[in-house]
Amino acid sequence: MNRIVLILCIFYLPLTVKAQHPITFFTKPEAIKLKQLLKVYPLLNQSFTSIKNDVDKYIGVDIDVPVPKDPAGGYTHDRHKANYTLMFNSGILYNLTGNNQYAIIVKNLLLKYAALNPTLKNHPQATSNSPGRIFWQALNDANWMVYSGMAYDLVYNALSEKDRKIIEDGAFKPEVDFFTHDLKNWFNLLHNHAVWACAGVGIIGIASHNNDYVEMALKGTAKDGKRGFIALMDSLFSPDGYYTEGPYYTRYALLPFVLFANALNNSRPSLKIFEHRNKILQKALYTCIEETNLDGRFFPLNDAIKEKDYTTNELVTAIDIFWKVYGPDKNLLPIVKKQGKVLLNIGGASIAEALQTNKNIPEYFPYKTIESTDGANGNEGGLSIFRNGTGKNLSSLLFKYTSHGLSHGHFDKLGIMLFDKGNEILTDYGSVRFVGIEQKYGGRYLPENNTYAEQTIAHNTITVDEASDFGGKEATAEKFHSQKLFSSYTNLNVQVASAMEDNAYPGTLLQRTVYMLQLPGDKKIIADIFNAHSAITHQYDLPFHYIGQLINTSFSYNPFTTKQQALGKKNGYQFLWKEAEATIGDTTIQCTFLNNGTYYSISSLIQDSAQIFFTRTGANDPNFNLRHEPAFIIRKKGNNQSFVNVVEIHGKYDSINELSYNSYPSVKQINLLQNDDNYTIAEIKVDNNTLLIAQCNKDFNVDSMHFANGLTWKGPFLVWYNGKKL
Amino acid sequence: MNRIVLILCIFYLPLTVKAQHPITFFTKPEAIKLKQLLKVYPLLNQSFTSIKNDVDKYIGVDIDVPVPKDPAGGYTHDRHKANYTLMFNSGILYNLTGNNQYAIIVKNLLLKYAALNPTLKNHPQATSNSPGRIFWQALNDANWMVYSGMAYDLVYNALSEKDRKIIEDGAFKPEVDFFTHDLKNWFNLLHNHAVWACAGVGIIGIASHNNDYVEMALKGTAKDGKRGFIALMDSLFSPDGYYTEGPYYTRYALLPFVLFANALNNSRPSLKIFEHRNKILQKALYTCIEETNLDGRFFPLNDAIKEKDYTTNELVTAIDIFWKVYGPDKNLLPIVKKQGKVLLNIGGASIAEALQTNKNIPEYFPYKTIESTDGANGNEGGLSIFRNGTGKNLSSLLFKYTSHGLSHGHFDKLGIMLFDKGNEILTDYGSVRFVGIEQKYGGRYLPENNTYAEQTIAHNTITVDEASDFGGKEATAEKFHSQKLFSSYTNLNVQVASAMEDNAYPGTLLQRTVYMLQLPGDKKIIADIFNAHSAITHQYDLPFHYIGQLINTSFSYNPFTTKQQALGKKNGYQFLWKEAEATIGDTTIQCTFLNNGTYYSISSLIQDSAQIFFTRTGANDPNFNLRHEPAFIIRKKGNNQSFVNVVEIHGKYDSINELSYNSYPSVKQINLLQNDDNYTIAEIKVDNNTLLIAQCNKDFNVDSMHFANGLTWKGPFLVWYNGKKL
Repeated sequence: MNRIVLILCIFYLPLTVKAQHPITFFTKPEAIKLKQLLKVYPLLNQSFTSIKNDVDKYIGVDIDVPVPKDPAGGYTHDRHKANYTLMFNSGILYNLTGNNQYAIIVKNLLLKYAALNPTLKNHPQATSNSPGRIFWQALNDANWMVYSGMAYDLVYNALSEKDRKIIEDGAFKPEVDFFTHDLKNWFNLLHNHAVWACAGVGIIGIASHNNDYVEMALKGTAKDGKRGFIALMDSLFSPDGYYTEGPYYTRYALLPFVLFANALNNSRPSLKIFEHRNKILQKALYTCIEETNLDGRFFPLNDAIKEKDYTTNELVTAIDIFWKVYGPDKNLLPIVKKQGKVLLNIGGASIAEALQTNKNIPEYFPYKTIESTDGANGNEGGLSIFRNGTGKNLSSLLFKYTSHGLSHGHFDKLGIMLFDKGNEILTDYGSVRFVGIEQKYGGRYLPENNTYAEQTIAHNTITVDEASDFGGKEATAEKFHSQKLFSSYTNLNVQVASAMEDNAYPGTLLQRTVYMLQLPGDKKIIADIFNAHSAITHQYDLPFHYIGQLINTSFSYNPFTTKQQALGKKNGYQFLWKEAEATIGDTTIQCTFLNNGTYYSISSLIQDSAQIFFTRTGANDPNFNLRHEPAFIIRKKGNNQSFVNVVEIHGKYDSINELSYNSYPSVKQINLLQNDDNYTIAEIKVDNNTLLIAQCNKDFNVDSMHFANGLTWKGPFLVWYNGKKL
Repeated sequence: MNRIVLILCIFYLPLTVKAQHPITFFTKPEAIKLKQLLKVYPLLNQSFTSIKNDVDKYIGVDIDVPVPKDPAGGYTHDRHKANYTLMFNSGILYNLTGNNQYAIIVKNLLLKYAALNPTLKNHPQATSNSPGRIFWQALNDANWMVYSGMAYDLVYNALSEKDRKIIEDGAFKPEVDFFTHDLKNWFNLLHNHAVWACAGVGIIGIASHNNDYVEMALKGTAKDGKRGFIALMDSLFSPDGYYTEGPYYTRYALLPFVLFANALNNSRPSLKIFEHRNKILQKALYTCIEETNLDGRFFPLNDAIKEKDYTTNELVTAIDIFWKVYGPDKNLLPIVKKQGKVLLNIGGASIAEALQTNKNIPEYFPYKTIESTDGANGNEGGLSIFRNGTGKNLSSLLFKYTSHGLSHGHFDKLGIMLFDKGNEILTDYGSVRFVGIEQKYGGRYLPENNTYAEQTIAHNTITVDEASDFGGKEATAEKFHSQKLFSSYTNLNVQVASAMEDNAYPGTLLQRTVYMLQLPGDKKIIADIFNAHSAITHQYDLPFHYIGQLINTSFSYNPFTTKQQALGKKNGYQFLWKEAEATIGDTTIQCTFLNNGTYYSISSLIQDSAQIFFTRTGANDPNFNLRHEPAFIIRKKGNNQSFVNVVEIHGKYDSINELSYNSYPSVKQINLLQNDDNYTIAEIKVDNNTLLIAQCNKDFNVDSMHFANGLTWKGPFLVWYNGKKL
């Protein structure tokens, strides 16, 4: 084949395939098959009926396409959002019922948009540098393009040539032009917003036979492949599917990836888009699922709305499309069961069948310990999620040593979180935002998101000198990532990860090693060794933000009972009421709190001296935007300082029968036998037993032999219990 | 029959019937029948197996009967508590299996108690004037007597004459003597503790054929019937079954009533104890069930642990015994299903059968509006529980105008609470106590229960001059009760109750009328007209303690952002942090908060001027005993003052899909058209509609005609919506 023929093939072959409609969401054969199955599987039928009931209210109704005016949560925002969902659902129903009324709903709406869109300038509520036109931000316009593009394709066969031209020129072209010219830099970003933008332009391209649009979507406006959808697939995820913004945004980013990939798979199968980069999209989905709590909520890494869980529409869509593409996976059955609805595609039908035929679906997804790398090449730190326990008794410990996480990243280097039995125990605030609630700043991120939730003190990690990592500057933070030193997960009794960070605070090296231990007698213990090194004196604050009722402390403190003040003035400290403080010398202190019927105790080694603060969020919050949550903060001063803490999960409180079991911690004392550049050796008394942890601070080679403090071991760490290897 | 023969009959007839064992918990024929059904009904079998698994661990074990030392939550307390449960369960198993090992467990334990009990003095941790011996309070000793009395009866046939005598003289007599001599006054109280005491002495009497014990239990130590079990049945409940301490303690009081009545019913059927006072025990159970929220938790009237729900052992026991006595009731099926276990008696077997054969058990008990009177004669005020909505959408409004409620009463005259969709909306703090948690003052009531939770300011009612009702003095409060003025529940669109209180603050008359309204367009509104009258100037504070996230206010306020202080110094005010304050003149102000996906708005008419406070519990709480919950307080000063508030339940927030509907209140304005000694007429603008409420303040005759402000109506109130009767 000579070069011209090759180019012709590239340009014309897809056009031939594309000439079929529908093609973006599902194909004609898929729709025909689906129609036959509608009555067969109850959940499929239920999902169909639910959509039909919603859409039927609009048959014969003159639906408003208002001039854009309001921010998120306001009328025009919500109306346009409802319109694109309505068009998409109506388009599906047209194919599954043959009822032309559904096509008319889409046609009438798209014709109204064809009249409106050419008249639009930037939205009056636009505040960002990626303003929208129909909505306050371009991102929402991209959502509109994805769904109305698919809707157009779904009813394409029912439209006249004339209407098609009016819609393509009036409704779509102004938006595509706006994205690929006015917002070109934004469109070409390597960022989740750009995934939506590319998917919108690409889906409209496929639906309207506009190869120019599709090429820009796939390869960037310059069509050189350095930007656009494929580049986004190559750069936004780490090789094992971790998305740097965290699971709340993985969920969001995954949707346009999946929808556009699905449209490409139907229209350009030769691209093998779902195979691309060793099935990176499938890896991203599974990583995102592993990043959920037992109750299905996404772990609140970086900016995250805590209520969001895997029953969200984005995960219904992704799982149901992947079920079709990659085949059924019975591990997902607990999730699809809780979702309680399916997508109206062949994957959804197959899931509905699986739910009907599988009688004993387990209650939970089979979560396992995972370690994800961060960065496109997997060399920008990572995230460890330790698991211990089965079923309802699962404990999940997160240890984050990733890169910053783009604009939604938090300054939380080496932060940890703990979940147990489905409950949040040691927590991250998440984001300060009431998405979709107009009264709360139009549903946008509230100022306290930046001033509190992103700051280091809002996280379970060290804040140095009351300043956040990287001076709280995103641009600086983006240049660096933490570094894993060693990890091991093969022995389920001793799971460990160690990481360091030396850029967040120039001149200060932070090194944290976290052990999730299962001791004899069904004891679950987390040992946390956190060393800070510096040539000069600093103030180190290590908080434990916990959810629960404080039950007991082993030490006395000075409570602020009639007047209270904020802990500090800036970098997040201004949001913490100081409820009590204590000065402690050379001992092991303990706090016990109760959360949903389980006791949790934090035992802390205090060498020399430390200050302790009990704080609660809510200061400097004139608009009542914050939840009021407690923290326990250990403050040490010096150049080199060590924090050795043990978190114990113990006992039970049965509030119905008013019975309490094992409400006291078994940890009795913590000692540091050695702590220097080479080794840290900690001794923890657990009732009458001795737990010994030896770790290397310099040589992480798994084959090196070590001799220290009378102990001999091989590799970067070893844990003994009563003299025996655990 | 001459008198001697009659006396002989009274003394000897019961003895003949009693000669059968077992007789207290179940009879021999009942046990035989139950044994046959064990394998037939899965839930019965499961309940049996669960108990068997617990007890089997103790076969052949030398079980500790320690010298009493610890308070609630400590080892000796928990061990003795576990022992009496173990003995009772073991006794049941002996009868259902015939395995003598179970009888040996009971025998060995009772012989140990027979050695221990004669040596006991008052418990070292005893603090009250009713000290216990085995436990820190006599109440727990009574629990021990009830269950070990039944256990003794259950294994009676397996014991030698000699062991019986040792047990009766050693384990039981010291306790009975202690109660009926040392603690005679306490034993003869008309109070829930005395129910336990009588049941304990009475059951031991039945089990050991000691008629003297039974007579004292039934009629008081003087055996004159002025005290004791029958007098308690006559005095503790109102004629419709309301128990003055509230549902948390009804539950607790019900258990000894039911267990002793059951034993009496078996041993002295001629007493017809379950028919006594028009089946007062059955009425008490149903009233107690109506006093639960949709999620099964007891409404927190007076001292109450909020976690407690109807799955508690006490309600399993009561329902299962009543099921046997009064016959099956399908309305209870949703409750027994959630209980998930049954008592090992014939009632439990019948319930297990019903759960197996009824396929479509509704999710919720069919709650309905109820009005209970308080006081033995039903003339000491009462409680209205308004209901609106069905299934999950049930709203429940409580209006309390009862008497004080004995030692567990709160100073909450004319207080209200609101529950919606199973959630707490306008709330009562409940009690400050961590029952069974040793670290929290041995599980006893914490000091803040008295200093905060019981005080008037902790409730949704008016506090006058920063002092609690009756000066916070229980002895004074016990002398009075509020008084209902009128009520009507027949029109489900307009449910209303009105009550007054003029003793709580001498010289001040408080009159509150609460309307639960269902308006066209599915709007749920609560109108609350609260008038205070006095000849002299007072400060009136009306709080709304709410659970939720503040979303919006219609007015500006001064927030305390960097320092905050307590709202006051005494009577509960010292526990409220003052988060913000405002001074408002002549207008309608609004606050909206969000709770579990529903919006709630409070609209308040401010005539002349008022101060507003946003507060949060947690000040003056050095031991972290309190939850941190918000309140919105309206403060007015003057002699006569009116508070007209409208609470609106509206809209929806779907956090999974991030969509908000109807997040703004429809109430726009409130006006008082007239407010004097005769009438109050309020006009409420609801969007473009007018809601008019006219009520009488003096003449509550249902037949009187009234003419005021151009309106004409009959009876104590009328509600119009757009000029038509609602």
